[in-house]
Amino acid sequence: MKLYDGGRAPNPRRVRIFLAEKGITVPTEQVELGQLQQRSDAYTAINPMQRVPALVLDDGTVIAESIAICRYIEELHPEPNLFGATTLERALVEMWQRRLEWRLFLPIAQAFRHSHPRMAEMENPQVPGWGAANRPKALRGMGIVDEALRDRRFIAGDRFTVADITGLVALDFAKPARIAIPPELAHLNRWHETLATRPSAAA
Amino acid sequence: MKLYDGGRAPNPRRVRIFLAEKGITVPTEQVELGQLQQRSDAYTAINPMQRVPALVLDDGTVIAESIAICRYIEELHPEPNLFGATTLERALVEMWQRRLEWRLFLPIAQAFRHSHPRMAEMENPQVPGWGAANRPKALRGMGIVDEALRDRRFIAGDRFTVADITGLVALDFAKPARIAIPPELAHLNRWHETLATRPSAAA
Repeated sequence: MKLYDGGRAPNPRRVRIFLAEKGITVPTEQVELGQLQQRSDAYTAINPMQRVPALVLDDGTVIAESIAICRYIEELHPEPNLFGATTLERALVEMWQRRLEWRLFLPIAQAFRHSHPRMAEMENPQVPGWGAANRPKALRGMGIVDEALRDRRFIAGDRFTVADITGLVALDFAKPARIAIPPELAHLNRWHETLATRPSAAA
Repeated sequence: MKLYDGGRAPNPRRVRIFLAEKGITVPTEQVELGQLQQRSDAYTAINPMQRVPALVLDDGTVIAESIAICRYIEELHPEPNLFGATTLERALVEMWQRRLEWRLFLPIAQAFRHSHPRMAEMENPQVPGWGAANRPKALRGMGIVDEALRDRRFIAGDRFTVADITGLVALDFAKPARIAIPPELAHLNRWHETLATRPSAAA
């Protein structure tokens, strides 16, 4: 298999962290987003959505979408378990993974994409009012996550899961999006630090 | 268990269609979105995201997020299989479910939320420029899905899965969003009609 990776972009990083947590490596090819290589004919033939990452299997089958790639890897390499070990845990991991995607990662990413000059070509048209509208959405998401973390170490329970990966990548993306994480959100900041100091965070 | 449902809103409909395909019923309570009941203290205590649907188990555990609810139901009632029967099929169903969410459902929903007067209180501030920017995104998504359907009956292969449910709900939501589905997208329109005539579509 081969992984089409995308440097510092947040979605490719989710898959790299996941692979690091599993302790496995996959041959990788970089797609240069700064040069809009994801829109090349060659890459569009691999993923018509023109997004990274994408995993190409040896028979040519393409699995796109970060979490679909992670699920596939999870089935091939079940340990350490990152998607939940029981029916209920799997549901709660999925719930939190999705909540973090939609209520934290999405508003932070939209604030970035609609305000950063570097994104003018990738996000066309940029809508500055939409970028601005996402700042309070992101802060509201941070507040809800902070409250949820009051009584547990990780977002879906007492152990690290794929939902935490989405949380880490989202919070780290707040900096380029120029959204300050409020220091008074003590649980959120404690969690962020816990995740950021895992070896996988360097991936 | 009890399902907090939300009438005509698209996400609750995804779960109702899923339950209909499984042939099961779950006791339901309506959350009146028109009256902003999802923001009441009582409902916020159930789902701090103030979104429907939410499934409450007999011990009080809450599973929110439509697809997390569907996954949980799938494990309790495995037949008919709607999330994939093999490792590869599960990856492809997840890929298409997510592609349809992010590249079809999201832009259609954003076009609706940021242009319809009825959404002024729920989506505050409405950003008309963002609503307008989502129309071409939705049409681009429709074109890619049309192309993908050229050589198969359903979006993830030759049989109906949860990804098709997301597709049906997204396409049906194009009408209130006032986005016309281009008649020349023959594969997309054939698929839409196939899905819309299943008994579950009435859910």
